[in-house]
Amino acid sequence: MGIKLGTNDYGKAENRVVRIHRDTPRHEIRDVTVSTALRGDFTAAHLAGDQSRVLPTDTQKNTVYAYAKEHGLREIEDYALTLARHFVSDVEPVEGARVEVDEHTWERIPVEGGGDHSWVRRESEIRTTVVEVSAAGETVVSGLEDLVLLKSTGSEFAGFLRDGYTTLQETHDRIMSTSLVATWTYAGTDVDWDKSWSDVRAILLERFASVHSLALQQTLWEMGRAVLEAHPEITEVSLAAPNKHHFAVDLSPFGLENPNEVFHAADRPYGLIRATVVRD
Amino acid sequence: MGIKLGTNDYGKAENRVVRIHRDTPRHEIRDVTVSTALRGDFTAAHLAGDQSRVLPTDTQKNTVYAYAKEHGLREIEDYALTLARHFVSDVEPVEGARVEVDEHTWERIPVEGGGDHSWVRRESEIRTTVVEVSAAGETVVSGLEDLVLLKSTGSEFAGFLRDGYTTLQETHDRIMSTSLVATWTYAGTDVDWDKSWSDVRAILLERFASVHSLALQQTLWEMGRAVLEAHPEITEVSLAAPNKHHFAVDLSPFGLENPNEVFHAADRPYGLIRATVVRD
Amino acid sequence: MGIKLGTNDYGKAENRVVRIHRDTPRHEIRDVTVSTALRGDFTAAHLAGDQSRVLPTDTQKNTVYAYAKEHGLREIEDYALTLARHFVSDVEPVEGARVEVDEHTWERIPVEGGGDHSWVRRESEIRTTVVEVSAAGETVVSGLEDLVLLKSTGSEFAGFLRDGYTTLQETHDRIMSTSLVATWTYAGTDVDWDKSWSDVRAILLERFASVHSLALQQTLWEMGRAVLEAHPEITEVSLAAPNKHHFAVDLSPFGLENPNEVFHAADRPYGLIRATVVRD
Amino acid sequence: MGIKLGTNDYGKAENRVVRIHRDTPRHEIRDVTVSTALRGDFTAAHLAGDQSRVLPTDTQKNTVYAYAKEHGLREIEDYALTLARHFVSDVEPVEGARVEVDEHTWERIPVEGGGDHSWVRRESEIRTTVVEVSAAGETVVSGLEDLVLLKSTGSEFAGFLRDGYTTLQETHDRIMSTSLVATWTYAGTDVDWDKSWSDVRAILLERFASVHSLALQQTLWEMGRAVLEAHPEITEVSLAAPNKHHFAVDLSPFGLENPNEVFHAADRPYGLIRATVVRD
Repeated sequence: MGIKLGTNDYGKAENRVVRIHRDTPRHEIRDVTVSTALRGDFTAAHLAGDQSRVLPTDTQKNTVYAYAKEHGLREIEDYALTLARHFVSDVEPVEGARVEVDEHTWERIPVEGGGDHSWVRRESEIRTTVVEVSAAGETVVSGLEDLVLLKSTGSEFAGFLRDGYTTLQETHDRIMSTSLVATWTYAGTDVDWDKSWSDVRAILLERFASVHSLALQQTLWEMGRAVLEAHPEITEVSLAAPNKHHFAVDLSPFGLENPNEVFHAADRPYGLIRATVVRD
Repeated sequence: MGIKLGTNDYGKAENRVVRIHRDTPRHEIRDVTVSTALRGDFTAAHLAGDQSRVLPTDTQKNTVYAYAKEHGLREIEDYALTLARHFVSDVEPVEGARVEVDEHTWERIPVEGGGDHSWVRRESEIRTTVVEVSAAGETVVSGLEDLVLLKSTGSEFAGFLRDGYTTLQETHDRIMSTSLVATWTYAGTDVDWDKSWSDVRAILLERFASVHSLALQQTLWEMGRAVLEAHPEITEVSLAAPNKHHFAVDLSPFGLENPNEVFHAADRPYGLIRATVVRD
Repeated sequence: MGIKLGTNDYGKAENRVVRIHRDTPRHEIRDVTVSTALRGDFTAAHLAGDQSRVLPTDTQKNTVYAYAKEHGLREIEDYALTLARHFVSDVEPVEGARVEVDEHTWERIPVEGGGDHSWVRRESEIRTTVVEVSAAGETVVSGLEDLVLLKSTGSEFAGFLRDGYTTLQETHDRIMSTSLVATWTYAGTDVDWDKSWSDVRAILLERFASVHSLALQQTLWEMGRAVLEAHPEITEVSLAAPNKHHFAVDLSPFGLENPNEVFHAADRPYGLIRATVVRD
Repeated sequence: MGIKLGTNDYGKAENRVVRIHRDTPRHEIRDVTVSTALRGDFTAAHLAGDQSRVLPTDTQKNTVYAYAKEHGLREIEDYALTLARHFVSDVEPVEGARVEVDEHTWERIPVEGGGDHSWVRRESEIRTTVVEVSAAGETVVSGLEDLVLLKSTGSEFAGFLRDGYTTLQETHDRIMSTSLVATWTYAGTDVDWDKSWSDVRAILLERFASVHSLALQQTLWEMGRAVLEAHPEITEVSLAAPNKHHFAVDLSPFGLENPNEVFHAADRPYGLIRATVVRD
């Protein structure tokens, strides 16, 4: 029985690109982290160290920056598609390309004059896209990360299964908090990316806030379903939600009641709920 | 020549406290990380392991949570002062107490009904205070961390000193970006803390955006001076500003010009500029 | 066209368990981070908030700790298998269980007497296992993370493909450094886990050090091949290796040569090479 | 009442320097992170944006790398002193220089031949030095960070002060664990730095392991005292020790005893004990 090379890819990860659009006095900014990965027959590079079919990761980096100038960088999905298509179309040995873009958001500083070219960053939340291009087609999966949410009421957890290791008390009022990672898959590439992304984000927020939650699972389902109902261009929504536990502190030793007012926000462990909502 | 115990303190660091004010249907939230440190004569604990004068850090933790209920938790300066005074006044061996509070900011989710008790977190920026109480008096140093700012023009760096290790080119147009840490010292404790903090933050933002910068040093000076001019209750402002370098990428090998449009955002090393502005 | 629940799971992530074996004066320590995830038909929990088939993540946490006592915690693969089998066998709605364990390594402090129960931690490297149990069978994938390696010579990169975005110079002597993530799949579960893990790690180190590298791809291939050749109980090896770039600094402006003696260790971007080596 | 510039400095932080000594086939490696900060009269730079007395941080970076070649980089204290003296002596406006160096440790891979130029990194622990040079003299403060230690027995905590917020139980057997930060101040600069550092580290380890601990305070005192007793060239030792709490898990609901065998390793909050030991 022999040994052979299985799946493999290579690329340049986490290129930190800032693109200023300064055609007008009111600048625009795009601040992105870009990772590329190429697939193809790179057997010789592995087995014999022969690089003749290997486009260096340094070249991929150069291309990432050059394309930000040559082809612009506005909607990250368009930028990623253009890059991925280039690698597959223009670099002979490349059969498949994956381009990931994380976008970091900036807001204008609301100052007379200054707001044209001065920004303050909102770091906690990231807009994401992962684009794959190959002979098999093109896929775009966009999303967001680190959307940290909290409800101070309107969340229960009761009626659950019990076994010999169960000590948890039922509750009909708790804090529910998560740092949401959401991704959604587009049916095609003829999409108004910015509008679609903003709409989906608004739906996720609205559902989180409005649904009376019986469990984090139910909230995720309602979020994903609402996105699919409103967005025919999306075929599937995946949600990963850590349950960031907030434990009501027992203040009774100090003669104090604690009707869900004072909580310890725990780091680890945390619940982790993952669900995909799809079209039937 | 003998050996003796020098300065020492001890406490409970990074208590993660979330306080929900739910007296009305429209909740308020305070999300803070609290660290305590006590000073006094704890020689016996060190030299002989005698804990009879040592209030456990576990007790300090309990007090942090209990005070969030007993005395409320609204403005972090008031909360920290109340805690620090308690340790010094009520725990006999304690001669000095230091309480640090980092506040993590939440925004209401703008949804009908939901906004009363649903929030989305802005994680990147933290409001801080450090309170010290002892027989020598009370000091309050408030501030902010991780206020990430960027100007896409309006920043120069030229006319600098050169020696045999200097290769830097002068520039009259560059990106200037920083992740600001600012602290300011109050003359007393009779202060409208929330209002003062918000005003200072607004001044820092306005100055960063409006000042045409000849150097990060100059921008920091203008920020600090403007705060002192507008806020007689503040005696001193300290600013620490990493110069988060954005390097214009050389695209000429690819036949492209780059008139300050495409940048590489570097991680390390970074410039680090620190300045304190004081009253004369 | 309807909407339905797709793949989903849930569990308790990052339980921080420390197990001291103290049956003899010479203690043993196991320091692990354990994550569980359960699969099954949890549709009612999502669609209707009905938790009657949901074993709480809090119960999973309790089980993690209880099993560390009840069934011991020595080899992480055995521990993870025992836990996963329990969830599938003993909790009716559970059809599949995934248990991930990261082990953090400690070394005894070499002190007379003290070494029996005193340790110093080696934090950078982690031993890992991921176990999955379901009706389809049992799989064990073990590995290591954050094994940071560096060669100061014996590494080339030349003869690579060039296109219009290529500026990289060829080199026949460079630093090669990586922070290796390796995982390998076992054919069964009747394995001397500790011995197998230590042997694989030794092979990875030996190959990294001994192979004259023409590319990181080639080094990975040689590592993976050597593991498969020596370990019939392993069916497949996956390696992910960031190319942690070390750039020789240009000291010529200062009248200094730099024959690969002084390097800048860059953070981002980095190459990322991934390869799987399998049996034919 | 006017406003003026107070204390200020500036420099280049976190230069990532790797120095390979390759004069012989058996290479040596030094992997360091270097930060510089300069003081002097930089009023004009702040008040008027006049850079004529400002040596750019970019030049400081160049100097850091050039000195690693020109003057070698072996013992970090010597390297830092040489750099700091250069800035003060050779750059006219500079009155004081502070150079911080963190050293990351590598071990040779024990392979025939390979060990001459192949290494595996021990990441968790860092060797540090902070050197200050000015007209007032030279100070060297060396140390270590992230030395993570654990005792599985031989640690008590009892007889402590109690107040109305105390709920902690006394214990005569617990896990004690910390991630030690130690710094020590040298009386002069004529020191065998590597030997001194290794000896101090060995003493710290030995004392941690051998002392039966009645409190973390006592252990720190014994560590610091032992260093001063053995090292006349050191005038003062500072220790900062987070008390990384390990809580014995209550397994009684599952019918299990837990005689200090299964622990939850908590992240936050943690005790934080700081003590300085000085000569009388």
